[in-house]
Amino acid sequence: MKLATLLLGLTLGLGPLLAAEQPLVLQTDFGTKDGAVAAMRGIAVGVSRQLAIYDLSHENTPFDIWEAAYRLKQAAPFWPEGTVFVSVVDPGVGTARKSVVLRTKSGHFFVGPDNGTWTLIADELGIAAVREIDEAKNRRVGSERSYTFHGRDVYAYVGARLAAGVITFDQVGPELPARVVALAYEKPRVERGVLVGTIPYLDFQYGNVWTNLDEAHFAKLAPVTGDRFRVTIAKAGRTVYTGEMPYARTFGDVAEGAPLLYLNSLMNVSLALNVGNFAQKHAIACGAEWSVRVEKLKP
Amino acid sequence: MKLATLLLGLTLGLGPLLAAEQPLVLQTDFGTKDGAVAAMRGIAVGVSRQLAIYDLSHENTPFDIWEAAYRLKQAAPFWPEGTVFVSVVDPGVGTARKSVVLRTKSGHFFVGPDNGTWTLIADELGIAAVREIDEAKNRRVGSERSYTFHGRDVYAYVGARLAAGVITFDQVGPELPARVVALAYEKPRVERGVLVGTIPYLDFQYGNVWTNLDEAHFAKLAPVTGDRFRVTIAKAGRTVYTGEMPYARTFGDVAEGAPLLYLNSLMNVSLALNVGNFAQKHAIACGAEWSVRVEKLKP
Amino acid sequence: MKLATLLLGLTLGLGPLLAAEQPLVLQTDFGTKDGAVAAMRGIAVGVSRQLAIYDLSHENTPFDIWEAAYRLKQAAPFWPEGTVFVSVVDPGVGTARKSVVLRTKSGHFFVGPDNGTWTLIADELGIAAVREIDEAKNRRVGSERSYTFHGRDVYAYVGARLAAGVITFDQVGPELPARVVALAYEKPRVERGVLVGTIPYLDFQYGNVWTNLDEAHFAKLAPVTGDRFRVTIAKAGRTVYTGEMPYARTFGDVAEGAPLLYLNSLMNVSLALNVGNFAQKHAIACGAEWSVRVEKLKP
Repeated sequence: MKLATLLLGLTLGLGPLLAAEQPLVLQTDFGTKDGAVAAMRGIAVGVSRQLAIYDLSHENTPFDIWEAAYRLKQAAPFWPEGTVFVSVVDPGVGTARKSVVLRTKSGHFFVGPDNGTWTLIADELGIAAVREIDEAKNRRVGSERSYTFHGRDVYAYVGARLAAGVITFDQVGPELPARVVALAYEKPRVERGVLVGTIPYLDFQYGNVWTNLDEAHFAKLAPVTGDRFRVTIAKAGRTVYTGEMPYARTFGDVAEGAPLLYLNSLMNVSLALNVGNFAQKHAIACGAEWSVRVEKLKP
Repeated sequence: MKLATLLLGLTLGLGPLLAAEQPLVLQTDFGTKDGAVAAMRGIAVGVSRQLAIYDLSHENTPFDIWEAAYRLKQAAPFWPEGTVFVSVVDPGVGTARKSVVLRTKSGHFFVGPDNGTWTLIADELGIAAVREIDEAKNRRVGSERSYTFHGRDVYAYVGARLAAGVITFDQVGPELPARVVALAYEKPRVERGVLVGTIPYLDFQYGNVWTNLDEAHFAKLAPVTGDRFRVTIAKAGRTVYTGEMPYARTFGDVAEGAPLLYLNSLMNVSLALNVGNFAQKHAIACGAEWSVRVEKLKP
Repeated sequence: MKLATLLLGLTLGLGPLLAAEQPLVLQTDFGTKDGAVAAMRGIAVGVSRQLAIYDLSHENTPFDIWEAAYRLKQAAPFWPEGTVFVSVVDPGVGTARKSVVLRTKSGHFFVGPDNGTWTLIADELGIAAVREIDEAKNRRVGSERSYTFHGRDVYAYVGARLAAGVITFDQVGPELPARVVALAYEKPRVERGVLVGTIPYLDFQYGNVWTNLDEAHFAKLAPVTGDRFRVTIAKAGRTVYTGEMPYARTFGDVAEGAPLLYLNSLMNVSLALNVGNFAQKHAIACGAEWSVRVEKLKP
């Protein structure tokens, strides 16, 4: 009896050391040239040395909230339930935008300023609850007079405490209505048999053009691999590119340098050159003013 | 009795596996384009697979010791006691500069060449002790004929052994006098009511200009949020910028594009444009030849 | 008896949590600007939260298989036995190139497309066995309709399962003949007392020129530190640089800005300027068309 207790105690004693803490993932627009991100990591390690800390990216275009929102959409759904994301792209640091933690229906947590960063992830993963960070309780000790580095003093600190289980979601601060600040963005649609959408993002490294035409909308054109499509890209209504290309399953299905239409890793219609840079060749960028039209050609 | 021994043995046996090793943080000027940093990480993992290895930055301007010193100042104080930093910005690799481990009064460790890299961290955290690395005992096995990559063969190896508890600080090598090679740098001062200092570093990502005017010196002007200041920046004595701006608590307190004077994350006087790039707009860089004067204006 | 069983069970129960999983190291040409690498990391963490995940580099020139091969050579041998490398530089994604896991005689594992990436590591570490990834069993659940991101859906997933011990090497898929696709590359040779080789890679950050003249070939010139050498570099047979320099043990042995010949961190003959950029100054790049001749001068 005493033995069992002892063993139980031993097991329980080891428990906290072995408990799998949640992963902590950091995204900022700080770049990696200086020590700002490392200061955030240091604060997180100070909360718990067992924490596993990862980077989403720190190369976000400074102040570009849309890009931050899109990158979360690109990466967060592939992380396990319970993962805590800290995202600091915060042109309004020190202004009235709220500091929050969003819990999605998928069980992920998002820590940072409520300035539009959660737009796409909220749509995709669903909002379960939103809490405002109570900085009186959840702020790095000794940081009271520091007003310009919430990423280090508030967000990394709160994210680490949440991931390490030092605080529960309820202890973040008071619950807010279950909504987040959302950037306006256009949804895809079909107009007389033509798919119409936008170019929310580029696959920068390769120059592939990513549209917001999702698999469900694309299916309305009853596409079959090998079908040919006419693609028109416009900036602020002015045509920048028009061309024809096949719907291919993968890049190698067309000749090197040839264009193709394919479904990207998010299962959205995308345009590429096989072993080439579509965006660069045709001077295409991304953002709200860029629109795309996709039309299936008769065989 | 035998049981207790068994349990004790079990617990002790697990102990080493569970013991929180110290974090290891790497800084170099190697860039991240090739495999050099990864080779260092591999050596460290070979010392202990339980080690938690982090990056400060590897984007240091090649050979720029001052930048390395400043980044340590920016990040190291935010890491917990016991953290081991390896810093390899080493234009004199293979020359007479000593390879050392610095233990600061704050309980942090700094491993690398004693070439000025420790200048600012020694001033800020205080020197507790300095030991020279005894390469006869503390050098990657098989690296005896390799003379040009101390970062991998000596510093990552020693840093990992220290962080993992394979060696104690005393086992690093013989104790040296408690001082480090220091780069000369100007301290801030007040001249007839005007604060005079230098621009040791830029917040590269946003173009904010960081001065060495600390909070204590700034306090001598009795600043109140909203007060206006005249700021003059000179390169080698020639004025590059002069302008007036308010002392703001945070960026959002001024209009977009407007200048502000604020205390940065290190509590030093800094200059910025709200959602803009001050350094780029006014062609300002950093270094010993850049000076700054800050004067409070009459209301 | 029951007690011993209990203790054994306890120990075994903890075993999996404590078992040192193998390190997982990622290399891609995705860049770090978007969320692609982070999606890979998320998949790996989903396989096992205890996994230690590291980066080799993600800054590989897009589609440059040779560069990926060289970086593996530069970093992998310095990692402990059992380390699992995932390398995704894959211009032929979705084509007939096989997806494999290479086990080297050194006990390292390499996961990715068999497209030449393994050329140098196979030569250096030796091929123990090659298995083709059976995607019917080893592919992220739910990724069946995703054809363009094998890095996330197949390679990161398989690499993580192998590193975490979820599958053994045998469970990767069917064994293939013990060979890999190899890029053609020239071996160093001696021609009438002159060493002749190529420039496979640059040390980009510093502009040092790395040749494929290894220590054994160099030894044929009976070099002694301080000896002088004539070095000629040609691109496609046309001389780009010719000059004389000493064989130095380390950079600091020559004046700042002066050239030297030294053995780099891979013990290959290399050319540098002390605190300078040799490649930039003399407009030298790397690749199959770049050749180098090294001749010992009479004293």
